[in-house]
Amino acid sequence: MASDAKLSLRKDLARELGADSVVDSEQVGPYCHDAAIQRGLRGVPDAVVRPADAAGVARALRWCYRHDCSVVPRGGGTGLVGGAVAVDGGVVVSVERLNAVRGVYPELGRMYVQAAVSTANVSRLARESGLMFPPDPGAAAQSQIGGNVATNAGGPHAFKYGPTRRWVSGLEVALAPGELAVLGSDARKDASGYDLVGLLAGSEGTLGIVTAVQLRLAPAPATVSPGVVFCSTAAAQGLLSDVLGSGLQLAVLDFIDAPAFALARGSYPGAEVPRGEDNGTDDGFAFLVELDGSATAVAEQRSELAAIVGAHGAHLDGDFDQAQLWRWRDGLNGVIAGIRGGKVSEDICVPAERLLEALAGVQAIGSELGLEACAWGHAGDGIVHATYLVDTADGEEVDRALDAGRRALSLALALGGSITGEHGVGVVKRDLLGANWDAATLAAHGHVKAALDPKGLLNPGKKEPLGGWNAPQLQPQPAHRIDGRSC
Amino acid sequence: MASDAKLSLRKDLARELGADSVVDSEQVGPYCHDAAIQRGLRGVPDAVVRPADAAGVARALRWCYRHDCSVVPRGGGTGLVGGAVAVDGGVVVSVERLNAVRGVYPELGRMYVQAAVSTANVSRLARESGLMFPPDPGAAAQSQIGGNVATNAGGPHAFKYGPTRRWVSGLEVALAPGELAVLGSDARKDASGYDLVGLLAGSEGTLGIVTAVQLRLAPAPATVSPGVVFCSTAAAQGLLSDVLGSGLQLAVLDFIDAPAFALARGSYPGAEVPRGEDNGTDDGFAFLVELDGSATAVAEQRSELAAIVGAHGAHLDGDFDQAQLWRWRDGLNGVIAGIRGGKVSEDICVPAERLLEALAGVQAIGSELGLEACAWGHAGDGIVHATYLVDTADGEEVDRALDAGRRALSLALALGGSITGEHGVGVVKRDLLGANWDAATLAAHGHVKAALDPKGLLNPGKKEPLGGWNAPQLQPQPAHRIDGRSC
Repeated sequence: MASDAKLSLRKDLARELGADSVVDSEQVGPYCHDAAIQRGLRGVPDAVVRPADAAGVARALRWCYRHDCSVVPRGGGTGLVGGAVAVDGGVVVSVERLNAVRGVYPELGRMYVQAAVSTANVSRLARESGLMFPPDPGAAAQSQIGGNVATNAGGPHAFKYGPTRRWVSGLEVALAPGELAVLGSDARKDASGYDLVGLLAGSEGTLGIVTAVQLRLAPAPATVSPGVVFCSTAAAQGLLSDVLGSGLQLAVLDFIDAPAFALARGSYPGAEVPRGEDNGTDDGFAFLVELDGSATAVAEQRSELAAIVGAHGAHLDGDFDQAQLWRWRDGLNGVIAGIRGGKVSEDICVPAERLLEALAGVQAIGSELGLEACAWGHAGDGIVHATYLVDTADGEEVDRALDAGRRALSLALALGGSITGEHGVGVVKRDLLGANWDAATLAAHGHVKAALDPKGLLNPGKKEPLGGWNAPQLQPQPAHRIDGRSC
Repeated sequence: MASDAKLSLRKDLARELGADSVVDSEQVGPYCHDAAIQRGLRGVPDAVVRPADAAGVARALRWCYRHDCSVVPRGGGTGLVGGAVAVDGGVVVSVERLNAVRGVYPELGRMYVQAAVSTANVSRLARESGLMFPPDPGAAAQSQIGGNVATNAGGPHAFKYGPTRRWVSGLEVALAPGELAVLGSDARKDASGYDLVGLLAGSEGTLGIVTAVQLRLAPAPATVSPGVVFCSTAAAQGLLSDVLGSGLQLAVLDFIDAPAFALARGSYPGAEVPRGEDNGTDDGFAFLVELDGSATAVAEQRSELAAIVGAHGAHLDGDFDQAQLWRWRDGLNGVIAGIRGGKVSEDICVPAERLLEALAGVQAIGSELGLEACAWGHAGDGIVHATYLVDTADGEEVDRALDAGRRALSLALALGGSITGEHGVGVVKRDLLGANWDAATLAAHGHVKAALDPKGLLNPGKKEPLGGWNAPQLQPQPAHRIDGRSC
């Protein structure tokens, strides 16, 4: 859009929403990217609005719908797949001013928050009430509850507690052509309507804009106890399968593969290190676990876990400060990215019984393309963050790593898994979305999208196959960097 | 439809699906009703087909879609709201021949079954593998897994384990205009598409026909221990709230109110009876609980529960044979219906903190209309089966009881709850469906329905407000018996 057209657009929006709701053109920089900027993804919106309230969000949507102007909903901007980036222009609708906590009712285990309340604040408010908000995606300080719903965010604790959707009992959402809907209720079980809350959850801003969320909170466990299980890579699948089959209700069952652990072991806060360290990385496969419940229940789980661990010749490093271990785990991303300056990570998901097969595949892809590879993720859920180290200044290497990442996505599909377990599709994974779906499933997605966004203006092109739902171009294509417009 | 037209329809369907897939006209009797026959609901289909396989179901749907013929999907026929009844004719598509168990994989906690496998068989297969399929709606021997998905069935254990949806990782479903779709995957977490599995779950056959289900199974708890807590009606809400706030993860937290317990106490299998029995029913409010987990964990929960119970002057009757207690609980329905010959029961759901308010309202409605009232249900989820005793031979009384039931639905809405927690909407609750929803929510439901069933032929009129989604007639209306056609 030409700059005079943008000026006129901003004026129109200011008239509609109030001048303070339209971001000055010099201030739009931060709205031109999300965390997918790591792969060069940027997009300049034609305008950025930040309505003062939910009604303003609906009004912004209505104005855009009337004027055939596309809308890019934006929360904390921590997404990794470009879901909040205006790659083809349009109006970014930021919910940043919807940051009120409407109410916390500890005795009822409920909380009502507007969309821009950060995940960290939701967790803190729950904790201060003696309760727990289980979902724990990364970047909690920046990520917002509205975005958590829009991506159905997970995290380590999703293994036991499920993703964000499970903790959402109601939503206030702006729907096309620009109306507010309140979905769900205080009743824990409601069989009256279609599950539109579930449909909106994980829809990545393509079906509506979340403006407020009604959350359920869990009782906080009396005891939380982390541990790290070290074993050889060869033993890891058997150990994982036995833990999964045992009925042990671990709160967290994460993994850090041997190459990743080797890269991050310098800062590892545990008392013990892998026994086989002198044999290279082969004995340093780590499962990060967390047990929770009453002190008795945790002790019982720990001894059951220890028995399984022992049977596999592994050992359990169990004397941790919980906060310290999680700080190390949360820092993994940065530490590994720092080794060579950067990394390309892809989030894939496979059936848990094929986790080690997937990890071997991630390594094989790295070998073939001459890249250092490692992986970590949520073993219990089969979620793998397949990672290739790069020197970000070396464009050719970055391209190779992006190619590797794409091959990892194909690998996940070949193993009966998914191209994304947590991060969503956004624009980054469009070309493989639906590659393993049948025609009726593809068509149903298109029908649902058209039902709630008949003009196709809500986050256009996101979470949609290249070519759209009706004519998807699903042949896996050679990797390409998505550079968008410079910002 | 005239009988010669029906004959011609049956011939067409026999040509399309094979003669053995079309039910003879003299054999359609059992397909003319579901469990809503208790309230006089019947409907004669124009034809009944029972395809041999999933492809046949899709073919039946395709034929009907091509010929603008409505389709009424049918499972076990245990529904209570007429969801499987052809109230306006059409072709009943029974999935009864899709009764194969495709595979049970205990070590992976997965099971693949066709739609007509009974809930009891799913549970048994899980149990025989040392696992558990938690959903436990009533009528397990007749109800089928496809119908359980179509209604997102719950039951007592849904309090801890969630409804059917939580245990479904994938669906094979016939979608309009007649294609099979496979939704979901073996990956435990998949962020790639819209949650169409969740959308189909609970859609009551209005969006597609479930032909097979991929289930997750839970580890079977080592110890399961039931108990009954007796308290006064006045103490019940405080006790419930304290249990809910305590963080105790009870597997079941059901209730049987004092009037219901008084009616069923003759067969109560417990060692103790309510202490206040001589004071009438006021001290006979019962919570039926179940604790599960390791023996240690159960013992610990039991002592924590006992402390709460003691603080409310209640007492815990805890020495039961589990099977015996559940047989008694499962028989409640029949016992109470037998007192005067029949009953009208409505399934409502309220926020759990308003349970006793709802129960008082159920009684007040009974008093006002001169009916004996009682209730039981799932206290933890706020689900109330509001029940009015009738002499089924007394049509005027039955009408009054139906009126009472409708008032109970309005009561649920007034308390911030729902007109159905478990049983669904079917045809029985259409006139109140959406009565407390905003216009955008109503419209969104209509759009989703039209997206997946553009001709409106899938179970028409079910789970839809009177007048349809676009022009709902939502004013609460005087109760009426739905008599349909005689069968």
